[in-house]
Amino acid sequence: MDLGISGRRAILLASSRGLGRACAESIAREGVHIVINGRTAADVDTAVSELQAAHDVEVTGVVGDSSTREVHDALLDACPEPDIVLLNGEGPSPTPFDRLGAEALDAAFQQAVVGPVSFLQRVVPGMVERRFGRIVAVSSAMVKTPNPVMSLSHGTRLGLAGILKGLSKDVVAHNVTVNQLLPERFDTGRQQQMAELVMKSKGVSYDEARAEQIASIKAGRLGRPDEFGDAFAYLCSAQAGYLSGQSLQLDGGSYEGIF
Amino acid sequence: MDLGISGRRAILLASSRGLGRACAESIAREGVHIVINGRTAADVDTAVSELQAAHDVEVTGVVGDSSTREVHDALLDACPEPDIVLLNGEGPSPTPFDRLGAEALDAAFQQAVVGPVSFLQRVVPGMVERRFGRIVAVSSAMVKTPNPVMSLSHGTRLGLAGILKGLSKDVVAHNVTVNQLLPERFDTGRQQQMAELVMKSKGVSYDEARAEQIASIKAGRLGRPDEFGDAFAYLCSAQAGYLSGQSLQLDGGSYEGIF
Amino acid sequence: MDLGISGRRAILLASSRGLGRACAESIAREGVHIVINGRTAADVDTAVSELQAAHDVEVTGVVGDSSTREVHDALLDACPEPDIVLLNGEGPSPTPFDRLGAEALDAAFQQAVVGPVSFLQRVVPGMVERRFGRIVAVSSAMVKTPNPVMSLSHGTRLGLAGILKGLSKDVVAHNVTVNQLLPERFDTGRQQQMAELVMKSKGVSYDEARAEQIASIKAGRLGRPDEFGDAFAYLCSAQAGYLSGQSLQLDGGSYEGIF
Amino acid sequence: MDLGISGRRAILLASSRGLGRACAESIAREGVHIVINGRTAADVDTAVSELQAAHDVEVTGVVGDSSTREVHDALLDACPEPDIVLLNGEGPSPTPFDRLGAEALDAAFQQAVVGPVSFLQRVVPGMVERRFGRIVAVSSAMVKTPNPVMSLSHGTRLGLAGILKGLSKDVVAHNVTVNQLLPERFDTGRQQQMAELVMKSKGVSYDEARAEQIASIKAGRLGRPDEFGDAFAYLCSAQAGYLSGQSLQLDGGSYEGIF
Repeated sequence: MDLGISGRRAILLASSRGLGRACAESIAREGVHIVINGRTAADVDTAVSELQAAHDVEVTGVVGDSSTREVHDALLDACPEPDIVLLNGEGPSPTPFDRLGAEALDAAFQQAVVGPVSFLQRVVPGMVERRFGRIVAVSSAMVKTPNPVMSLSHGTRLGLAGILKGLSKDVVAHNVTVNQLLPERFDTGRQQQMAELVMKSKGVSYDEARAEQIASIKAGRLGRPDEFGDAFAYLCSAQAGYLSGQSLQLDGGSYEGIF
Repeated sequence: MDLGISGRRAILLASSRGLGRACAESIAREGVHIVINGRTAADVDTAVSELQAAHDVEVTGVVGDSSTREVHDALLDACPEPDIVLLNGEGPSPTPFDRLGAEALDAAFQQAVVGPVSFLQRVVPGMVERRFGRIVAVSSAMVKTPNPVMSLSHGTRLGLAGILKGLSKDVVAHNVTVNQLLPERFDTGRQQQMAELVMKSKGVSYDEARAEQIASIKAGRLGRPDEFGDAFAYLCSAQAGYLSGQSLQLDGGSYEGIF
Repeated sequence: MDLGISGRRAILLASSRGLGRACAESIAREGVHIVINGRTAADVDTAVSELQAAHDVEVTGVVGDSSTREVHDALLDACPEPDIVLLNGEGPSPTPFDRLGAEALDAAFQQAVVGPVSFLQRVVPGMVERRFGRIVAVSSAMVKTPNPVMSLSHGTRLGLAGILKGLSKDVVAHNVTVNQLLPERFDTGRQQQMAELVMKSKGVSYDEARAEQIASIKAGRLGRPDEFGDAFAYLCSAQAGYLSGQSLQLDGGSYEGIF
Repeated sequence: MDLGISGRRAILLASSRGLGRACAESIAREGVHIVINGRTAADVDTAVSELQAAHDVEVTGVVGDSSTREVHDALLDACPEPDIVLLNGEGPSPTPFDRLGAEALDAAFQQAVVGPVSFLQRVVPGMVERRFGRIVAVSSAMVKTPNPVMSLSHGTRLGLAGILKGLSKDVVAHNVTVNQLLPERFDTGRQQQMAELVMKSKGVSYDEARAEQIASIKAGRLGRPDEFGDAFAYLCSAQAGYLSGQSLQLDGGSYEGIF
């Protein structure tokens, strides 16, 4: 399927590893020039060179925390007129309700809401003017089923979900779409680390720890990052211009609710 | 993007025209052999020959009401082991609450629920056994925002939505996904007919009648059938196996709700 | 809290036992004259005499299947101008997807949708004209989280949910509200029977079978029918006239979703 | 209906006027001792004396911004063991997406999330221990249908919605419920002010400005604060202990969605 985006330009926040990296792969394959971002220079460098080697597109790297103004500046220097933006970032740590501090809440809000909003304010007008934009945020399955210990995540990401939904209504008439992907349990470094933590804390084998992760997924397996990347690529396609304001769950069919 | 379904086989209910036909186009292009179905022989014949001319896949036609056992028999004769099924059918007519009769309700339930369920019962076991299945139902945006005069539609399609959601939980572990597409206002013959009705009833021009249709769509235009077809094609892809139990709205960003 | 409905008149379908009976108790206590209905004459008689003994209101009984026209006639003979209607009925039996037959689906649709709609068509115009109506349907928590084996329930009740939502939009301006209650696991005869079935099938004690029922309820207990009845009474109150088109879950806080 | 809360104690944030004040009235009438809070001393004094005159319960007033630690201290001094808490506060101003500043976002987050969370952390453990708690947050209908210019509201209140839903799962087993009320267009001072603003900006009469407010409400009228107060009172009742984690819309039936 021709996605109709060859030659387009994308900025992908937090894309040096994991799901963000998979998103980069999927659209680079479709001919999109990309700006990779991550906090660790080595990861960014690796991603840039591997992507350059594999795909005939321009690949640039910007190192730094994607919720800051300086990194926004660098990203827009590297790509002043992005057609595609991936909003992504590391999720906050599990914290029970009684230990939710103001500082941690504020930091999570900065990461999940203030940073992304301020970045979008700089790219949306151009997308509207050029009549093409594809904005996709990586959120979490938990925004629809809040887990008590993940308040730092859903307590801020739900706010972004609302803001993006509002924004989507204003810009869809200009062929700028705004959607969210809600992943649950993909086979990235994060799940591997979590399995190792479980190994130690419960004294189980790696395979047992992995089996536990899979137990909550109706598909009976973890998701593959390339599946996530291709869902992103589809949402970025030219022919997805009539699809906006949606939150697509990529969770192995695990969500229990009707809608 | 390679959807990984070349050589697969699909049965598409109510696919000789409109959105169903667009779905057929999008997967035939990806190398899927297809069975076209429609109530009018001429429409089916036209679709079959046009699709055969355009794509290097096997195309078969089955004429008849897709909610009946006889047509199910014929469809399964034409394609005993479908990998992909499109559930589609003509929507019922607008009817205000006070004129909802038992007969019309029963007929709509037969079309929207009993027929599709009985067909799926015949194809799901094979999909599960072969560990590949992609079931997509064309529902309506109105199932999430019920319009008082469309009870025959949402009053039965919501039932199917529930049954499909339940089914999805049972089969996703076997790489059989079940999803819904919820369209609103695509530029098909139906919208053209409706515009003509409005022309006559309101004494307006065709362009005015069309403008009225578009007024309720945030995208500022009707959807194109090929956009619908490509959304279907993506849901049928090999790499969409982790996406199940979802109801994806294709409505030009018009849905007001957060989820 | 004065509910402002003393002297009002109510027809309560399937109210001789269980949750329906509890609803009758709660509004009889508030001075509402009531018509009790149930399939078993002895149950109806008992309910009528107990309610008459306890409350200073008129209590009438109508025996029969509340989805039939004859019973509707009898109910409206007993109370030609109801202000309050409870839609209730026995839920269908668990049935796996592959054994969902057309006959069982049609019967469930008749019970869950066609019967209630035809009854409402006879009472809504009067409510609109008199500018007071409170319609409450007892649905099931499963309409929001479909359980694969309960398709006969959610596959029809979701249809009613849609029709009632549509209806609510048309009538709220006339002070006629339409809401649903979505119960999960109340301590009625049904749960006791189910516990006895589990005792036999699993060879466990009654207490163990009950513990299993409670395990899925976040409140750590079954609901009490009087809690259900009082929720119904609140929805019927004069001061609930601004609350319509809602589906209120009474499930011990068990629903996982955000909305 | 006896709500079973006579003698209970409540802290109501932002309750000197409007909807908060109505909530105070409704539970004072049921015999609940109350602590009133507001930013303006005169308003708090008036509320306290009027409530004291009308109801035979203890009424205390605490002046100040309810999202601050100092006011939390004063509230808990006045009522160290609250059984009931109303979370309420003035909503933020309309702001279009392109003018959403970090400062305004942070301030809204402090008001809508950080303040309420830090207050709840101080009262929930006691509720759990005493095995009775009723927490109700006044949110907004817009959290379910985000309006582009109200991002400061839904962009933070949705976060609280998620946190409260998570919290509800942890505490319902201890008879502590957590629910939200989602109002739309109640006849409070705020709507009157907004009507006056519209008068000036559009050069229309007060009645025309009011008619415009009502136009978006399916009930054909604004809600009455006492209706809101009584919904709150019901959620605080002893018999509402099985109802938790819900977001009840009080919007004159205006919400378009099925759930």
